[in-house]
Amino acid sequence: MSQSATGPELDRLIQLLARLPGLGPRSARRAVLHLIRKREQLLLPLAEALQIAAERITLCSICGNVDTRDPCAICTDPRRDPAILCVVETVGDLWALERAQATRGRYHVLGGTLSPLDGIGPDDLSIAALVARAQNPEVREVILAVNATVEGQTTAHYVTDLLHGTDVRVTRLAHGVPVGGELDYLDDGTLAAAIRSRTPF
Amino acid sequence: MSQSATGPELDRLIQLLARLPGLGPRSARRAVLHLIRKREQLLLPLAEALQIAAERITLCSICGNVDTRDPCAICTDPRRDPAILCVVETVGDLWALERAQATRGRYHVLGGTLSPLDGIGPDDLSIAALVARAQNPEVREVILAVNATVEGQTTAHYVTDLLHGTDVRVTRLAHGVPVGGELDYLDDGTLAAAIRSRTPF
Repeated sequence: MSQSATGPELDRLIQLLARLPGLGPRSARRAVLHLIRKREQLLLPLAEALQIAAERITLCSICGNVDTRDPCAICTDPRRDPAILCVVETVGDLWALERAQATRGRYHVLGGTLSPLDGIGPDDLSIAALVARAQNPEVREVILAVNATVEGQTTAHYVTDLLHGTDVRVTRLAHGVPVGGELDYLDDGTLAAAIRSRTPF
Repeated sequence: MSQSATGPELDRLIQLLARLPGLGPRSARRAVLHLIRKREQLLLPLAEALQIAAERITLCSICGNVDTRDPCAICTDPRRDPAILCVVETVGDLWALERAQATRGRYHVLGGTLSPLDGIGPDDLSIAALVARAQNPEVREVILAVNATVEGQTTAHYVTDLLHGTDVRVTRLAHGVPVGGELDYLDDGTLAAAIRSRTPF
């Protein structure tokens, strides 16, 4: 009966939308109804934008970023500092750092973290490509901008070991109190790290 | 900088997705990254499904349901009982009743509820069309399956008044304890209604 109410076309659309992170079957149905109500303003433009993305978006063969060209806009931007390589786990992390305008260097997307339990080893990440890029004498510093999780730190240690003996300086993100954060809500590890890394005022 | 990181195509896609109910800018970015990772399994099929929906989906001129044909599959289904007209606020409610296989009758989608504060009067809803359908001697019962909210009940009373004097029987949904519900978590109004409408065991 549910089939006859929504029809195969809408059922398929709902199923596909429900597979997006953050959406389930119920919110996908709401989204589809919203799309139908906003046919001109939302449904048609979204269909077109997805088509364009599907046609043009590709992965940068140098850094792993997503863009409409390969190499990507960041890798080919002459204003970016080629001496700094900022290593991130995912493209989402790269976007976050770009929004924050946190670095003027270039990026390297690992594609995840080492996770033996999930069967993800060094060969599943673009670690070899990172080591190769770091051999370039232009590169002076590798910033390990991985998540402060066990997997992220494990991966950071593994990469650091591989880069040992090269001339590049390997750095990692500072631990500390988030800007705007309240001490009372922070975990002990963060507070201890913030005290340890205290700076002159 | 955010522009240069994601590019205009992805920025537009993120903006459009962020306008879906249940998604914001952050979850839209995550959704886009997920779509790019699942290009063949999700991005291309979703673009196609949206295109198909945009081309084929229309509103049923009789009941207001969405379907690929007009009149819709429910209005033209000879197995549905033409004596029962189930009045709902939205197509989402119609889908919910169909999933529950709650009625064998046909539907009438009002398109919302009366809401003077929001400037929504009888002419903004398909109330006149409902009254016209109810004149059909085939129709014996109008079930007011509107939400148990103030607006829903106001609308139900308004429709009931308009149908007064016709031969149709006007009914509404029962109030009571939801199936699987725990008394301790229910509001007083629901509990009182459930006691009032108690049935022999």
